[in-house]
Amino acid sequence: MGLEVYFKFILSFALILIAARLGGEFAERYLKQPRVLGQLVAGVIISPFALGGLIFGSDPIILNFATISGQFVQTGEAISDFNIMEIISQIAVVILLFVAGVETDVRSFVRSGITGGAVAIGGVILPFLFGYLITWALYPVIGMTGFLFMGAVLTTTSIGVTAKILMDMGRLQTREGTTILVGAVVDDIIGIVILSVVVSMARTGVLDVGHALQVGAIGIVVWFALLIAGVRFNKYISRIFLNPFKRSGTMPIVAIIIGLLIAYLVTLIGLHPVIGAYVAGLMFAATREREEILHGIRPIMLFLAPFFFCYLGMQVDMRLSSIAAIITVVLIILATLGKVIGCYIPARFVGRLSRNSSMIVGLGMVPRGEVGLIIAGAGLLAVGEQFRELFAVAVLVSIATTLITPAMLKPFFRRALAESSLPEK
Amino acid sequence: MGLEVYFKFILSFALILIAARLGGEFAERYLKQPRVLGQLVAGVIISPFALGGLIFGSDPIILNFATISGQFVQTGEAISDFNIMEIISQIAVVILLFVAGVETDVRSFVRSGITGGAVAIGGVILPFLFGYLITWALYPVIGMTGFLFMGAVLTTTSIGVTAKILMDMGRLQTREGTTILVGAVVDDIIGIVILSVVVSMARTGVLDVGHALQVGAIGIVVWFALLIAGVRFNKYISRIFLNPFKRSGTMPIVAIIIGLLIAYLVTLIGLHPVIGAYVAGLMFAATREREEILHGIRPIMLFLAPFFFCYLGMQVDMRLSSIAAIITVVLIILATLGKVIGCYIPARFVGRLSRNSSMIVGLGMVPRGEVGLIIAGAGLLAVGEQFRELFAVAVLVSIATTLITPAMLKPFFRRALAESSLPEK
Repeated sequence: MGLEVYFKFILSFALILIAARLGGEFAERYLKQPRVLGQLVAGVIISPFALGGLIFGSDPIILNFATISGQFVQTGEAISDFNIMEIISQIAVVILLFVAGVETDVRSFVRSGITGGAVAIGGVILPFLFGYLITWALYPVIGMTGFLFMGAVLTTTSIGVTAKILMDMGRLQTREGTTILVGAVVDDIIGIVILSVVVSMARTGVLDVGHALQVGAIGIVVWFALLIAGVRFNKYISRIFLNPFKRSGTMPIVAIIIGLLIAYLVTLIGLHPVIGAYVAGLMFAATREREEILHGIRPIMLFLAPFFFCYLGMQVDMRLSSIAAIITVVLIILATLGKVIGCYIPARFVGRLSRNSSMIVGLGMVPRGEVGLIIAGAGLLAVGEQFRELFAVAVLVSIATTLITPAMLKPFFRRALAESSLPEK
Repeated sequence: MGLEVYFKFILSFALILIAARLGGEFAERYLKQPRVLGQLVAGVIISPFALGGLIFGSDPIILNFATISGQFVQTGEAISDFNIMEIISQIAVVILLFVAGVETDVRSFVRSGITGGAVAIGGVILPFLFGYLITWALYPVIGMTGFLFMGAVLTTTSIGVTAKILMDMGRLQTREGTTILVGAVVDDIIGIVILSVVVSMARTGVLDVGHALQVGAIGIVVWFALLIAGVRFNKYISRIFLNPFKRSGTMPIVAIIIGLLIAYLVTLIGLHPVIGAYVAGLMFAATREREEILHGIRPIMLFLAPFFFCYLGMQVDMRLSSIAAIITVVLIILATLGKVIGCYIPARFVGRLSRNSSMIVGLGMVPRGEVGLIIAGAGLLAVGEQFRELFAVAVLVSIATTLITPAMLKPFFRRALAESSLPEK
């Protein structure tokens, strides 16, 4: 009947959600860690390279990526290595970032703009150098494009992971929280610029800095335009987009659809959809309907976000060659140090945050998460099969930096809580 | 970079949701019709055979079905005519039916059991004969398997469409509402039995009634077992599955995941996932946590259900040959009459419902919706390319019966409302 294939997707979807939920609960209740951590580790455990492969090894869909090569029937357009489950994962991360945007305290976000920008730039330089140099020293065979890609992977900061950690810890609306998010967003724009340089270099063999700067400039302008639109014209947003749907109770759904649409639109100028989703969320964060919107969209986020993180974990193949394992360990350490040092300094001296808060900002910028993975995937496409092992390294660094961040943040959050209960706030 | 493909899915998802929302609002506000109707028509308008094809004709994903043929990379397993967007549609309809299940008044559901069963059987006989005979008379070239398939398509009742219409009209928890839903569920079990007879006939050339009866018997037993489990052991369900997740606020999400899992599990015994999802919902309908669960899952349903209906509408190709158009019109009329007559009689004389309520039950059983489409799709797979035109007919009949039902139901609902405001209730 051919319908079984569709049903298997329902099963795989359900199994991943179950693993994510159990992992999240376990981490939170017994290990006193953020749920994201448990969801990621649950993903690693049920991955096709681990338990999923052992149990459902012969099935391409169940606890697998449903990767397909072939062609679209209607147009004959070829498609290769297309990961079907990734579609749900993309929708999930867009919704997660949209909710994070709506939950953000926009006024303090705007206040954090300069500090966030400085933090972002500070967090780019060291990690890029570390990524480039370590790959050059230990994996010279891959060539300059490969070095550049590993550098680019390390520059990123995952808004999704970071936002979820801050949300779970109830620290999203603090000054550190918004600084980190601004930094993460700007970092992604920088990451995209580097990515477009590297991709065009891999294709043509020459550096096209002009084109890269153009992408970056357009990205920043559009991004600020949307932010300002939200902060200044939120009354019009309410009147045009939200009020007509109040009576039917579907207003929050309309907001989330607009978020999905903007997430796509920013991809047309070379940005990643999560950036658009986040800014779309910020647009609604200043409206009077904010609480009502959050009330209607949080359940959707609670339903889908664990899927994203668990699916991220599922992509990790723990079987590495010894040299790749060494590079992985070295890069995890340097990726962490690079961000902590590079972001602590601007947070402390540009943003004039306390020592403890600056450490929170530095550590909060450590997770590479999905943006690191995206660049790694682009590297695999651009460099080809010989990049496969470094791709695994990049994925592991992205995951590992995400895994270690919550535990490192905890003591500093505790101290921040103690500080904030002092009279001077 | 290859990422554009994923982003296009986000766009298509967003565009379908926008069309569904606008269509739904328009139908409700200006035409005073249920939202489902507007969502379906919006789908017909943006379908790849209409506006979507005109605007995005060259793209296989945007407002298209992303139908793919090729193979799974990991296993080499071939896959053909696989409709990628259908995955989201399947998840949406499962969630819709789960919510419908939780919203059902279980006690009146059990009370409606005998009437519902009688209504279902009554609604099968005439439509099956009409479907078989009309196809035999007007499209003899297709052969007996084809006649049987068209008969099978007409026997079904769409739980999804019917539940949504009843929900939108606020009539889900009435005696008529539960009778219709019980009837629809039993109808689907009967439909699956007929389907398995026809499929095995198409494959082997002989009738295997024994196998078909076996599928049907297992289906009914499992279905009743789950229903009884929910009604009798709801305290244990609460204690084992729900209580552990109360503290983290994710209890409704756990319930919906269990719904997805049961939806898949029933497919292993040959039932369609929507039946499992609905029964899983019934399991939770008797728990004390019901209201809390509904509160957390309704936003997810509000978000995804319109996608399902709009996507259903998108599958309609309005360009038909004249003979196919004639068959379509005849079958729409007979499909409606067959259900109304076949269900009115048992509702009136077995269920002892009023004349008005019996008409509501008869009309409520008319939509063929997704189950009709499923059988039509199975027919296309079993009979082959020559069934393509009858497939379009079957889809149009499924859609048309869905489209006309709300308008036909309205006057009877109005009269029921007037009746129920009389002193004797």
